[in-house]
Amino acid sequence: MREVGEGDLEDLAIGAAVLGTGGGGNPYIGKLLAKQAIREHGPVTLVSVDEVPDEAVVVPSAMMGAPTVMVEKLPRGDEIIHAFKALEDYLGRPITHTVSIEAGGLNSTTPFSVAARMGIPLVDCDGMGRAFPEIQMVTATMYGVSATPMALADDKGNTALINTVDNRWTERLARSITIDMGATAMIALYVLTGKQLKEAMVPGTLGLAQELGSLIRQTRAAHGDAVGAILQRLNGFQIFSGKIADVRRRTEAGFAKGEARIEGIDQDAGSVLTIRFQNEHLVAIRDDRIVATVPDLIIVLEADSGEPITTEELRYGFRVAVIVTPCDARWRTPAGLALVGPRFFGYDVDYVPVEERFGSRGAAPATGL
Amino acid sequence: MREVGEGDLEDLAIGAAVLGTGGGGNPYIGKLLAKQAIREHGPVTLVSVDEVPDEAVVVPSAMMGAPTVMVEKLPRGDEIIHAFKALEDYLGRPITHTVSIEAGGLNSTTPFSVAARMGIPLVDCDGMGRAFPEIQMVTATMYGVSATPMALADDKGNTALINTVDNRWTERLARSITIDMGATAMIALYVLTGKQLKEAMVPGTLGLAQELGSLIRQTRAAHGDAVGAILQRLNGFQIFSGKIADVRRRTEAGFAKGEARIEGIDQDAGSVLTIRFQNEHLVAIRDDRIVATVPDLIIVLEADSGEPITTEELRYGFRVAVIVTPCDARWRTPAGLALVGPRFFGYDVDYVPVEERFGSRGAAPATGL
Repeated sequence: MREVGEGDLEDLAIGAAVLGTGGGGNPYIGKLLAKQAIREHGPVTLVSVDEVPDEAVVVPSAMMGAPTVMVEKLPRGDEIIHAFKALEDYLGRPITHTVSIEAGGLNSTTPFSVAARMGIPLVDCDGMGRAFPEIQMVTATMYGVSATPMALADDKGNTALINTVDNRWTERLARSITIDMGATAMIALYVLTGKQLKEAMVPGTLGLAQELGSLIRQTRAAHGDAVGAILQRLNGFQIFSGKIADVRRRTEAGFAKGEARIEGIDQDAGSVLTIRFQNEHLVAIRDDRIVATVPDLIIVLEADSGEPITTEELRYGFRVAVIVTPCDARWRTPAGLALVGPRFFGYDVDYVPVEERFGSRGAAPATGL
Repeated sequence: MREVGEGDLEDLAIGAAVLGTGGGGNPYIGKLLAKQAIREHGPVTLVSVDEVPDEAVVVPSAMMGAPTVMVEKLPRGDEIIHAFKALEDYLGRPITHTVSIEAGGLNSTTPFSVAARMGIPLVDCDGMGRAFPEIQMVTATMYGVSATPMALADDKGNTALINTVDNRWTERLARSITIDMGATAMIALYVLTGKQLKEAMVPGTLGLAQELGSLIRQTRAAHGDAVGAILQRLNGFQIFSGKIADVRRRTEAGFAKGEARIEGIDQDAGSVLTIRFQNEHLVAIRDDRIVATVPDLIIVLEADSGEPITTEELRYGFRVAVIVTPCDARWRTPAGLALVGPRFFGYDVDYVPVEERFGSRGAAPATGL
């Protein structure tokens, strides 16, 4: 158990955006909102998964919608409290803890606002160990945890509470409601007991995010190689160096979809890497061959600073390093791949773990990249 | 107070479909479902508005969605009970009465199923005195009654409970949820106290519907003029006689939209009447001139039998009488016309009451038509 204050949030938001693989929201907005909540309501108590009683009532909190819209439409701050209160009324018992549903610049910090405003502790874990675009895409789905009852709230004061027959139906109904609410909504869902939390979630994500953010900041201050430091910490592989040549994005069915074309430089000169995304990066295609896919983490870092770049920030001319890191082992099971493998997103290829694809090349952390 | 059994439902469903102005659902399906519920759970107690205690908790029940889909997708019967239970849980007190939200072949009989299954009385009134396509289009909106909390349920077992900042927002969110649920949903909304019910609803609609159905049946049995009998009872005007020449319909944004072209016969020979609809008939256009609009009731009757024809039943070759009857006086106020006048539906014309348009012609009931 430790207290998290305004100062910790800088590193945490940046590191969470690394794990957000292009999605999960903008770290600057996430940081601002969480700081404001802590300034008004005091520091947040962060507890580890082990410290949560089995009978606790844990409710993840997040922002749902297209990140492109989130950037332009700041939440007021109290929408999520409306969602929490609606869910608490429905449950008929108090919510004792909150937690992140996914890693991401905004969705790792949103629960800090909730914890500060509600005066409840935040648990250091998340539902994915990264970010994914759809509601059913959490490890908890594999453990039979229901996404509903789920509450949604918008900035106008509208709320909805849904109960669905499975988590795919939750995604379907919640996505339509979110679109109506103005393409973003604050959500509370996946009510877990402490016992369920321990088996079904990915532990330590917030601590890892803070560590990654700190690593970027300190390495940069020491004029070191921030990209290399992240690769080493995450056992990842750099798969491309280049300059952003073209970005196409559209908001479709409530998602930010599109692709970025990156022209290779240095050892990758003459090649093109295309990254396709649906809120998060889904696949990386090098000269028409898929070289990395979900559920592994495809991360775009600014080459010099090592700072993560979200899909809505991708711009012509940025020099970037594209790295891929292994996902939580549970995503690599048949059940995990059915939920978030490349075929779910329409890519008819088998998933090959990043270390099998790149382990023999010179890009492994062991080479000191 | 009186008991309503299976036998009463024949007339009631037919008469309600007259008031449904093309929408409000198919009377045969409505009748079947209500009969089945009464057979299983016993007769329904129908009470008048005056018999409802001021502190009663009254909840209208209905089917929402495109009537074209309703015809092909029968409700299971217990969806609406899921919606009622969800709303009752939210309210934290028992619902004491149910009521129709609109007149219509299905939506006048749906509350019978609810009353029979829940063992609560049904109040003889409705929210419009006719049918309208959107949720906010009830007289209660003019009295400041909120449509939410509102519960929706589908045939798969999904439920949603929404709270919105106004009744237009209720329509917007509920429509999307309904589309996701398969284009139809069972709904419970507009929670009213008995006191609110007395001022805000249209009394006697079910009794009127049963009377109209009985009038059609008896007049036909006596080889009389069923169309004329309805005109007389509703102080209406026959505005056209013709044969259906063409019907175009599409399901758009969850509504059945389209138009029917009717070629005139007898005194209307040489003219064409076009009726445009959005679930319900909105306007009647004679040779490019609008001759009738919402909120007055534009009703299509089968010429010989006097039976109402819903928009999804309109077929080439039907001989029909098009009649228009005056709406509830509250719809003719500025507040009423803002909610349901022709301009709301995109027709840039002033509303002119039917008796002003046709009162001087030979079609008035006084002429014995």
